[in-house]
Amino acid sequence: MNYPNKKRQVFHKTIDYANRGMDLERIINDTNEYLLTNDIAVIYKKPTPIGIVKVSYENNKQVITKGYFASPSTLDYNGLYKGKYIEFDAKNTEAKTSFPLANIHEHQIKHIRNIINHQGIVFLIIYMNNNYYLLNGPDLINFIDNNTRKSIPYDYLQEKGYKLEYNYNKGLNYINYIDIIGGIKNEETKN
Amino acid sequence: MNYPNKKRQVFHKTIDYANRGMDLERIINDTNEYLLTNDIAVIYKKPTPIGIVKVSYENNKQVITKGYFASPSTLDYNGLYKGKYIEFDAKNTEAKTSFPLANIHEHQIKHIRNIINHQGIVFLIIYMNNNYYLLNGPDLINFIDNNTRKSIPYDYLQEKGYKLEYNYNKGLNYINYIDIIGGIKNEETKN
Repeated sequence: MNYPNKKRQVFHKTIDYANRGMDLERIINDTNEYLLTNDIAVIYKKPTPIGIVKVSYENNKQVITKGYFASPSTLDYNGLYKGKYIEFDAKNTEAKTSFPLANIHEHQIKHIRNIINHQGIVFLIIYMNNNYYLLNGPDLINFIDNNTRKSIPYDYLQEKGYKLEYNYNKGLNYINYIDIIGGIKNEETKN
Repeated sequence: MNYPNKKRQVFHKTIDYANRGMDLERIINDTNEYLLTNDIAVIYKKPTPIGIVKVSYENNKQVITKGYFASPSTLDYNGLYKGKYIEFDAKNTEAKTSFPLANIHEHQIKHIRNIINHQGIVFLIIYMNNNYYLLNGPDLINFIDNNTRKSIPYDYLQEKGYKLEYNYNKGLNYINYIDIIGGIKNEETKN
């Protein structure tokens, strides 16, 4: 499990930012900041769920002195785009031939089904083999419901997923595909 | 500030649940559970944002040994209803004549404006004088933009707000007003 709230690393500017799956969270956060600043969408990372066990006081301020990381039952990012509800998660894998479904908790699958049933837009961003793919929620659920396999073949991702592009200023272009997967009329699509 | 993650109290069943503003968070959580279970809406409380300062290991598990409560820049609850994005916060005040705007952080006001601009549904649930009111985001922002006062008169809340009803099984009926404030066509309104 990744350490959830790690600070931005100081070598931010010098690493090869686009090609490191480990930096996926940072890329998504930067993209969301770009989308917010440019008034395109309002998307935030949810705080990491913490189970608080013990709280003390230090200079009259509450300090958590014991807590643990709880497993999330929803996805990491949510927000809105043209009034529509969006939720997604970002996953990376070092596997080459298939994406292990163990990366997604059972509760999260159930949550994805709920979002689809309530007409929300839900997807995964998967970094694999040096590429970023957007896999739409219904395509994920279809796979799960019609296969006994515990992983999604890379072929399926290439066939059903949308290959995303990374740009240093604009980040990952997932927002470009929301109109398509969400069936939003695109008279005002921004590119 | 409330202690954010307090456990459910054991005297849950015996207290006069509906009439205690202190229990507002629990009422909202129970309502959201009702809405989810009955397939009406998908709404969750966001985890409390925690600034993590120190993490140790105990039996190979990460344990937070120093952290603090960060102030939220968004609202506590969000989710979706008929595909639309919803976000809200629940506030209670013991003041009788006006609701102090100090209850809402500056960042939260900015966030409310963003949601409105992106056609989301955003509101406050205010418990005051033993009543629950839903105050629609645009009515809140209108007040702020056209007044120098630092609090919203109770009269304004009574005039512009929707008075909510509490039911032991269904919780607070805020969902009934979403179609109205969100301008959603109500051919399939559930009551």
